[in-house]
Amino acid sequence: MTAMLFGIYIFGQQIINRTVLRTNQESIKQYICELAQYGKDSLGRGNRVAFSNGDIEGRAYISKLMKKNGLDVHIDAAGNIIGSRAGQDMSLLPIVMGSHTDMVSLGGNYDGAVGVISAIEVMQVLQEHHVVTRHPLQVIDFIDEEGGVVGSHAVAGNLNKSALHEISSSGLTIAEGIRAVGGNPDKLADAIKPKGSFAAYLELHIEQGAFLENEKKDIGIVEGIVGIEEWEVTINGFANHAGTTPMLHRQDALLAAAKLIVSINDIVKGIPGIQVCNVGKIAVEPGATNVIPGKAVFSLELRDLDEKKIWNMFKAIELRADSIATQTATTISFKNLHMSSKPALMNRKIQDIIKTSTTQLGYSYKVMPSGAGHDAQEMALLAPAGMIFIPSVGGISHSPKEYSTPEAIYKGANVLLQSILQLDRQ
Amino acid sequence: MTAMLFGIYIFGQQIINRTVLRTNQESIKQYICELAQYGKDSLGRGNRVAFSNGDIEGRAYISKLMKKNGLDVHIDAAGNIIGSRAGQDMSLLPIVMGSHTDMVSLGGNYDGAVGVISAIEVMQVLQEHHVVTRHPLQVIDFIDEEGGVVGSHAVAGNLNKSALHEISSSGLTIAEGIRAVGGNPDKLADAIKPKGSFAAYLELHIEQGAFLENEKKDIGIVEGIVGIEEWEVTINGFANHAGTTPMLHRQDALLAAAKLIVSINDIVKGIPGIQVCNVGKIAVEPGATNVIPGKAVFSLELRDLDEKKIWNMFKAIELRADSIATQTATTISFKNLHMSSKPALMNRKIQDIIKTSTTQLGYSYKVMPSGAGHDAQEMALLAPAGMIFIPSVGGISHSPKEYSTPEAIYKGANVLLQSILQLDRQ
Repeated sequence: MTAMLFGIYIFGQQIINRTVLRTNQESIKQYICELAQYGKDSLGRGNRVAFSNGDIEGRAYISKLMKKNGLDVHIDAAGNIIGSRAGQDMSLLPIVMGSHTDMVSLGGNYDGAVGVISAIEVMQVLQEHHVVTRHPLQVIDFIDEEGGVVGSHAVAGNLNKSALHEISSSGLTIAEGIRAVGGNPDKLADAIKPKGSFAAYLELHIEQGAFLENEKKDIGIVEGIVGIEEWEVTINGFANHAGTTPMLHRQDALLAAAKLIVSINDIVKGIPGIQVCNVGKIAVEPGATNVIPGKAVFSLELRDLDEKKIWNMFKAIELRADSIATQTATTISFKNLHMSSKPALMNRKIQDIIKTSTTQLGYSYKVMPSGAGHDAQEMALLAPAGMIFIPSVGGISHSPKEYSTPEAIYKGANVLLQSILQLDRQ
Repeated sequence: MTAMLFGIYIFGQQIINRTVLRTNQESIKQYICELAQYGKDSLGRGNRVAFSNGDIEGRAYISKLMKKNGLDVHIDAAGNIIGSRAGQDMSLLPIVMGSHTDMVSLGGNYDGAVGVISAIEVMQVLQEHHVVTRHPLQVIDFIDEEGGVVGSHAVAGNLNKSALHEISSSGLTIAEGIRAVGGNPDKLADAIKPKGSFAAYLELHIEQGAFLENEKKDIGIVEGIVGIEEWEVTINGFANHAGTTPMLHRQDALLAAAKLIVSINDIVKGIPGIQVCNVGKIAVEPGATNVIPGKAVFSLELRDLDEKKIWNMFKAIELRADSIATQTATTISFKNLHMSSKPALMNRKIQDIIKTSTTQLGYSYKVMPSGAGHDAQEMALLAPAGMIFIPSVGGISHSPKEYSTPEAIYKGANVLLQSILQLDRQ
């Protein structure tokens, strides 16, 4: 039996036409459903934020799935799960596929998960067909992508020590979170991969926008990922009684915040281009119906492919904040967070390989930028990197309504598989 | 010994000139300090919100202090603490003093506490001088004033059953809170006092504004208490990815909220008069840096002496909300809460009695409205009611910086004492 399997294995290597290999649509669908069982809130909505119990359970599921498909599983010091498969020539650099399985609070089951599960499915197809590539292959499930590509930042050596003390969405600091998922924040240097450690990096991901759907394209070939800068904006006014303080003598921190949020949107919409802003979080103190807010803190995010443009928008926002502070008798300060990422261009040759695979599979494509940040932007610092997008129904993402059809995912996974095989031949 | 005390007691009644009686500045100061020890947060800031452990401990302290000063203590079905002292003629209606000892989150040690402690001090002075008034006297420490005069609402028979299910600042529902402080929400009818149950109601309170301080007056004689209406405003947009959703295709609930908060302030400031608004609480969902807010909920409060004006302002706000909803592709709804209170006029004769006491004590005064709601507004529905204000340093209230000087409180307590004695003579 062993001998026979060995024989098939040897011959499989020689006789199989790899270009006819396809992933299994049903397997991918099943794995996505299984992963989605972990990390729900009390209303059954997806809530698998990084380092939460749901995330820890989801990561255990992914480790198991990797092992089931013959991968050698290792958790690095940053807490990333790395599943490795040997190649024929172990002197060659590994070809790496990756994405993440954490989600935003009340997020969806496709952002990130599609990439990790399709990569594992690629490994499963290779195993089923006894294909051994020339290069070693790896799948990485990066930790805490939604908190600012934390896991891939760590691998690229860009995870600032101060970031370890930031509070993640789970309530834990990032250092505590890394420990909770089996990493060691004191030995982060062990997780760093020097530039040139990979032959290539490929990531399949949902588009999270509506361009592919609107233009009826199967595949998005990403040309670059926008840069993101984040700030914490703090407004200090003065908490006082809401009944006895005349309107004109107030220092209302929430009113100042509201004026600034409106202004930020006006400034960003007022310039031509694809740049975007977001104020996604806000908290006021003391936070009572009958007390004028004395303090407001909100998050600010600016994105564009051009870093200079981001900083020019920020300067305009700061200037407007000065006049709002004067108007409302408050002080407004901006703290730049260290989780931001630079714009990242995808490798031209890899874009061509994805294009060839897509065309050979008979699928349509569109070359496009990514408005979202991805682990690929960090991996692009270490190796030639590429991203494959598939359509998001209604362009919806970071929402329980996020959805991509099984067929769309299947097509993306096939492009991933064929691109890996093409890369391996070169 | 008993006989001698009895003798002094009898003679005390006959020979003492009650107009020379004064409260004890040091005792009041000490009691305020002692009460302030209960219900601090981890940073030592006052956080004795209704039904919290700190509030329960504070109320136990007040019960003990009442008993120490000879009062017969009873907790009614609503959880109010009622301390009673017999009068010479028990067929007369009681004269009632009251206020509250709960505070807003991160509030001060004077709002409410000054009134309850000064009333107990009045009882102490009477006991020390063996004065027995004609009328029975009562001190009431009403529960959850800051949550919308809940305890006095209950006594006036105005506590809506649906309000029992509202969540209070402590996290408990009001029903659970009432149970926690020793009341019985199933028997609320037992706490109701019919109209005409009291001879009079008097409440000493800090001004919580800066009029007395600015005009260098010792005492404020309240002519009326503004009405308050409260709403919960809910904005539904659509949560989506903050990087991939173009600015023009967003349904940002927080942006809509910000526009509406700015508009509310503009509308209320745009009309001549003393009316005020407040947006003191806001929460957004899902509340992540990189997700466009899909939902925003905030509190809205409007106050004025004229109820019609409140509703006219609200109509203008609703109209503006309609156009903001259209502009931002969101829906905006307003839920009127059942904790609101009607404007309440103070009794003219009681205003005159306070004026006479103040003048006889050699203090200065100002007749003024109250911008804040008070338990007196509910008691005014049952009996002739009056309020005595003392200056707030800097006009600051609902803040840890809230302060009134021991001398200012002493003067207020003396006016309370002399007004009670005058009322008792009539």
